[in-house]
Amino acid sequence: MTIRALVFDAYGTLYDVQSVLAKAEALCPGKGEVITQIWRLKQLEYTWLRSLLQEYEDFWLVTRAALDFALQAAEVEPNDAICGPLMENYLHLDPYPEASEALAALDGRKLAILSNGSPKMLQELVRNSGLDRWIHATISIDSVRAYKPHRACYALVGPVLEVPKQDVLFVSSNSFDVVGAKAFGFEAAWIRRSAVAGPATMFGMLRGRAEELGHAPDHTVSALTDLPRLL
Amino acid sequence: MTIRALVFDAYGTLYDVQSVLAKAEALCPGKGEVITQIWRLKQLEYTWLRSLLQEYEDFWLVTRAALDFALQAAEVEPNDAICGPLMENYLHLDPYPEASEALAALDGRKLAILSNGSPKMLQELVRNSGLDRWIHATISIDSVRAYKPHRACYALVGPVLEVPKQDVLFVSSNSFDVVGAKAFGFEAAWIRRSAVAGPATMFGMLRGRAEELGHAPDHTVSALTDLPRLL
Repeated sequence: MTIRALVFDAYGTLYDVQSVLAKAEALCPGKGEVITQIWRLKQLEYTWLRSLLQEYEDFWLVTRAALDFALQAAEVEPNDAICGPLMENYLHLDPYPEASEALAALDGRKLAILSNGSPKMLQELVRNSGLDRWIHATISIDSVRAYKPHRACYALVGPVLEVPKQDVLFVSSNSFDVVGAKAFGFEAAWIRRSAVAGPATMFGMLRGRAEELGHAPDHTVSALTDLPRLL
Repeated sequence: MTIRALVFDAYGTLYDVQSVLAKAEALCPGKGEVITQIWRLKQLEYTWLRSLLQEYEDFWLVTRAALDFALQAAEVEPNDAICGPLMENYLHLDPYPEASEALAALDGRKLAILSNGSPKMLQELVRNSGLDRWIHATISIDSVRAYKPHRACYALVGPVLEVPKQDVLFVSSNSFDVVGAKAFGFEAAWIRRSAVAGPATMFGMLRGRAEELGHAPDHTVSALTDLPRLL
């Protein structure tokens, strides 16, 4: 295999979406964990449902709608004082601690992001986190008005990076995204992070587990810094 | 409004998908609740993901794949002794207690089911439960090879029942399904059942809550027996 480009998912792969937990807990004491978990679950559900309904709205609006659901589920009334800071935080997500080191070690290959995020969200996120030092292209699915794992999303990569799909290693910690990348024809690495919430909660039991949808990843690793040895 | 036909969702609306709980608990002591909840969550996720991937498999196979995921999440090895009885139970789900009385009170109008279930699953389910006494047509989405809320599913109703969509009241307890029916153009009633698992668990907090996807239901009721007074 000749991997000429690595394409990364953003949310959950390079950036820790659970890093909003501290702010959620500060704003809604005792409920930060449940709000954060339900927020993420509904955010993904809404991307799939809006794609199926063919009623696309961008990821900022979907993320806000999912937050409204999560807050109400936790019996918190959504208002600007709570939603404002939590949404703002989405533009300043922490990269995983090993992200910079991993990207630096991959320097010399084409590095890109392919994400559900809107162009504005991704632009701010990559700049605010400093990962723009290594990432050559940030590709939003916004132009195809359907979310991953729709194959039209993955098809955006080729024309931008000018590499055939068999030369692309797609990297995601989201197992449905690995399935989509494999179904499209990329080589795929699954970053299998240990459960965030731990197996003590039902949500924790959903994490770090391959989907039963066929299309197994070519590689399963535990951190981004394991990638260079795959090449 | 002149409602000439009522079209019901099956799983969760006429039939209680949580009625497998007792068997799951008997087979996997102490884990029945978590297995049942995760099974249903992943079953729906897989219908949406397979539709988006354009890799349709029928609802029997999707249900089995979701069960495999749920068992492994609960640290139970899937085998025939466990999966056989649980899958078999899906053909013998209990109707909600008020289903017969509600359908009897609607006699005289066209009554149908529109369900994700495969033709074989639905045929057995309706016959085993005795609801075939009132249901005139059982429509599976199988022929369009995409799951609800894809609009092609709802479009199956018109040709079978020979009624225009504005004369159809669609009935579902699944809020994403209400959204799909409304987006298609049906009048829609949401059966908002009280939370099954209670708000004590995160899964309980997801239930009985409208999706933040637009398309509010025309009617929200708490039981099937509330339907006749809407007509």
